[in-house]
Amino acid sequence: ARPPSRAFASHELLHSPMHAANPACAMDQGRPCRHPLSNESENRRLLAHEQAIKGHFAAIIPALKRLAAQQHEADFPERAQRLADADLGFTLPVGILEDAWIAKLDMRALYGACVMHTIRLMAEQTQVAPPLQNSDEMSSFLLDCGYHAVDITPCSDGRLKGLIRYILRLPDDAVRSRKAYAGAMFDVEANVKRWIETELMRYREGRPVPADAGTRYLKIVVYHWSSSDPAHEGCAAHHSNERDAAEAGLGRLREFRQAIENSFCCGASVDTLLIGVDTDTDGIKVHVPDADGEMSLYRWVSNLTLYKETLNEDASTARLKVYQAIQAASATDGWGKGNGEPHEGMRRLIATLLINNLSQIEYVCGNWEGRYPDIGHNERFISVGDGFEEFQVRNLAYFVYLHTVEEGGPDLDVGIQIFSRINVLHGLPVPVAIHFRYDRRVPGSRERTVEHCQRVKAAIESRYAELHRQGLLVCGMTVQDKASGSPIEALEANGAAALRSAR
Amino acid sequence: ARPPSRAFASHELLHSPMHAANPACAMDQGRPCRHPLSNESENRRLLAHEQAIKGHFAAIIPALKRLAAQQHEADFPERAQRLADADLGFTLPVGILEDAWIAKLDMRALYGACVMHTIRLMAEQTQVAPPLQNSDEMSSFLLDCGYHAVDITPCSDGRLKGLIRYILRLPDDAVRSRKAYAGAMFDVEANVKRWIETELMRYREGRPVPADAGTRYLKIVVYHWSSSDPAHEGCAAHHSNERDAAEAGLGRLREFRQAIENSFCCGASVDTLLIGVDTDTDGIKVHVPDADGEMSLYRWVSNLTLYKETLNEDASTARLKVYQAIQAASATDGWGKGNGEPHEGMRRLIATLLINNLSQIEYVCGNWEGRYPDIGHNERFISVGDGFEEFQVRNLAYFVYLHTVEEGGPDLDVGIQIFSRINVLHGLPVPVAIHFRYDRRVPGSRERTVEHCQRVKAAIESRYAELHRQGLLVCGMTVQDKASGSPIEALEANGAAALRSAR
Ligand SMILES: [Zn+2]
Ligand SMILES: [Zn+2]
Ligand SMILES: [Zn+2]
Ligand SMILES: [Zn+2]
Repeated sequence: ARPPSRAFASHELLHSPMHAANPACAMDQGRPCRHPLSNESENRRLLAHEQAIKGHFAAIIPALKRLAAQQHEADFPERAQRLADADLGFTLPVGILEDAWIAKLDMRALYGACVMHTIRLMAEQTQVAPPLQNSDEMSSFLLDCGYHAVDITPCSDGRLKGLIRYILRLPDDAVRSRKAYAGAMFDVEANVKRWIETELMRYREGRPVPADAGTRYLKIVVYHWSSSDPAHEGCAAHHSNERDAAEAGLGRLREFRQAIENSFCCGASVDTLLIGVDTDTDGIKVHVPDADGEMSLYRWVSNLTLYKETLNEDASTARLKVYQAIQAASATDGWGKGNGEPHEGMRRLIATLLINNLSQIEYVCGNWEGRYPDIGHNERFISVGDGFEEFQVRNLAYFVYLHTVEEGGPDLDVGIQIFSRINVLHGLPVPVAIHFRYDRRVPGSRERTVEHCQRVKAAIESRYAELHRQGLLVCGMTVQDKASGSPIEALEANGAAALRSAR
Repeated sequence: ARPPSRAFASHELLHSPMHAANPACAMDQGRPCRHPLSNESENRRLLAHEQAIKGHFAAIIPALKRLAAQQHEADFPERAQRLADADLGFTLPVGILEDAWIAKLDMRALYGACVMHTIRLMAEQTQVAPPLQNSDEMSSFLLDCGYHAVDITPCSDGRLKGLIRYILRLPDDAVRSRKAYAGAMFDVEANVKRWIETELMRYREGRPVPADAGTRYLKIVVYHWSSSDPAHEGCAAHHSNERDAAEAGLGRLREFRQAIENSFCCGASVDTLLIGVDTDTDGIKVHVPDADGEMSLYRWVSNLTLYKETLNEDASTARLKVYQAIQAASATDGWGKGNGEPHEGMRRLIATLLINNLSQIEYVCGNWEGRYPDIGHNERFISVGDGFEEFQVRNLAYFVYLHTVEEGGPDLDVGIQIFSRINVLHGLPVPVAIHFRYDRRVPGSRERTVEHCQRVKAAIESRYAELHRQGLLVCGMTVQDKASGSPIEALEANGAAALRSAR
């Protein structure tokens, strides 16, 4: 529990009487604070994006309530379509509306259809919008820091869904992979294969830099906790124990690095970095590696502290203090003692991540008085498979990267448990959006990816057979070409069945 | 149907009155024929190996019959162990024997335990025996032909289980991969990943030759048919239709080649080769690529024909005729017309495979009058996972390479159908040997591989729940380090359950 702080008392009373004090800043008379290193215009754009996406999803339930009230009117199907078109921006499946008179409107099916439709609608709109950040610049910066590929594994938890764009403020294309696993427990063998692919590209094509450029692959693991309710709203996969989550992430990183070092000769290695996120404030904690690349649970920089300590400085002093904080962490004594400072590129990278995250702390500070109103789970759907690049908004989706349910089932179970509470308890189904990417250049790839979607859908429906039987599990399927900016293609469940029986 | 041939009439009457004529050779008065290019001493060694392996499996049922007759004797457990030790070379699970008095001996469980024990016993004995062939020599020859890696996908069919050692006479280590799929329908994406791994090894470590050596990766697909009963004993995955099997194999090879060519720049490509096997005679049919690497269902060399045409030549004339047969195939006109001859390395490789296979034709000829007595399925167990390198004997095991049952299930279904006929119909269980390899050098790899075995076992028992419930499905689990010659380690099913519940 955080100790109460006198400095925040007036702020607390003013803005958020139900919560504890604003954990980030002390502002006077409700005037929003302004950190010298934060990016105000980007914060405005990100807010508009988040509100647009969330607004569309939030419109579903009120619209369905209005429909429910009118379902016995004579011209119901026509009324319903007018209402859906006006409130949601799309029309509803005709079959469900026309069958309403027989018994009553199948609300579960309709809710599932609306979520899937909203996902596709949002994806289309996101693609039309220009990208928020310059990814070439960031890629050059990462290369400067010594990294030709950055591979981030967050926890599947929906509160980390905004990790790349919001919390770390990285452009999408600058990150090689962002596959999420429950508790951030990524698959070491699959990750070694991804490393191999990246290496071959450097050797064969000199992309992004030739193999002899002296750069490295950087693997980041992101765990999380809740500062307001640490015992309940932390990582479900680690029983809300922050220490367990961090330790497990660190262990997996070490296994990955040793897998590379032991399986390949000629000094093959990778750099690793462990980052924690307080999902209430989006403040990060960076575990600073030492000169040997080793990290410790007891050696880190807390960005929330850094935000408070630099809020009233000018920009260059604030920047200096960021570097000093990294230096101070490296000098940690006792349990957290390491073998000196990390190499200069790693220091610059950490400083950039911390500075980027200062904007996010201010984003939460300015819009939600330093702490999200939804500190707990509030996801709208479960995203399964390769995941949507288009959706990176906090608490929008619980994202399980998986290739088969046989392997990823336990990760999916955590998501189903969460939705049992937030949806099934209220009689709403769990919407599961199955999404895989294919490679248009490879013959048969799309057909095989479609079959892959169908196989995963069947496996999910069989794993949660009772939910499925009651209409409390609604799976949608989409595929997308690997090329950036490709449209999302919805698959017909019927077409699926036809394809399956034709085999 | 083969036309009856006058030349073989006396031979037929002499040796094999129930079958058609010996399809390979015409010999006088039962004197075994002797092809100038066949390797007699290797044939003797291979026969001894096959008989030893099959003999151990064949001993199981007689031993269990004797046990069954004695199960109500007072000192049954002790008698049974003496009998098992003498007849099978190992002792039986004590629990099953001691419970026999309660109702009766659980023959299904005992049969399953005997098959699993025999597998481990055979593996140990095989490892003690020196390898039959010189793999360094063959690897050099393959490099000379222009190939730094040879990757063979046969059908899962047990009659192809002796493909590498017997039918093609290749040393184990000379073949990079031999993963089997039902109907030889390999996973293109997984194979691209394997290609990437091979390429990176060349670039990083110059193994087996540097990337600029101008060599290629060779992918071979092996389909099969039955010349004696083509409509029933062909490939189950292709409804015993030889043409369908060959066409599907050719299509998959083209997809793989295009996947490589389209996904990687700088002239990346692979060579491909389609081979058919008549599982009655083990005679191969090689589809000769043209100068562009393209193959045709209508352009091939039949080795059974070549055997007959060269049986009475001296060695150098026979060798010349092999090359002429390849040349003649390349000159095929009409539907099979291609764009000239393949490159010299491919021609040498095909010639070597044909010559190697001449020994195998003679092996079948000398030991079984040119046609196996068991032309149909007669497998002893289903091998699942990475498969045992140690067992490469015809009709010993139906081998499904798979990573998950979710993906490999349809391949496994074909095997279960086969065993429904050859085992379940007689009340015997289907023995499924789950075997995966780990990498001792990678931390956590063995633990994860053990979990992988357990996950696959659970998925198999759930997919075939009714068989499992009746005791008609017995799964054994083993793991093995990747290093060649590592021991096979049996996993306790109990330990498995404990590990699962502890997660
Ligand atoms: Zn989590
Ligand atoms: Zn503030
Ligand atoms: Zn087959
Ligand atoms: Zn003969």
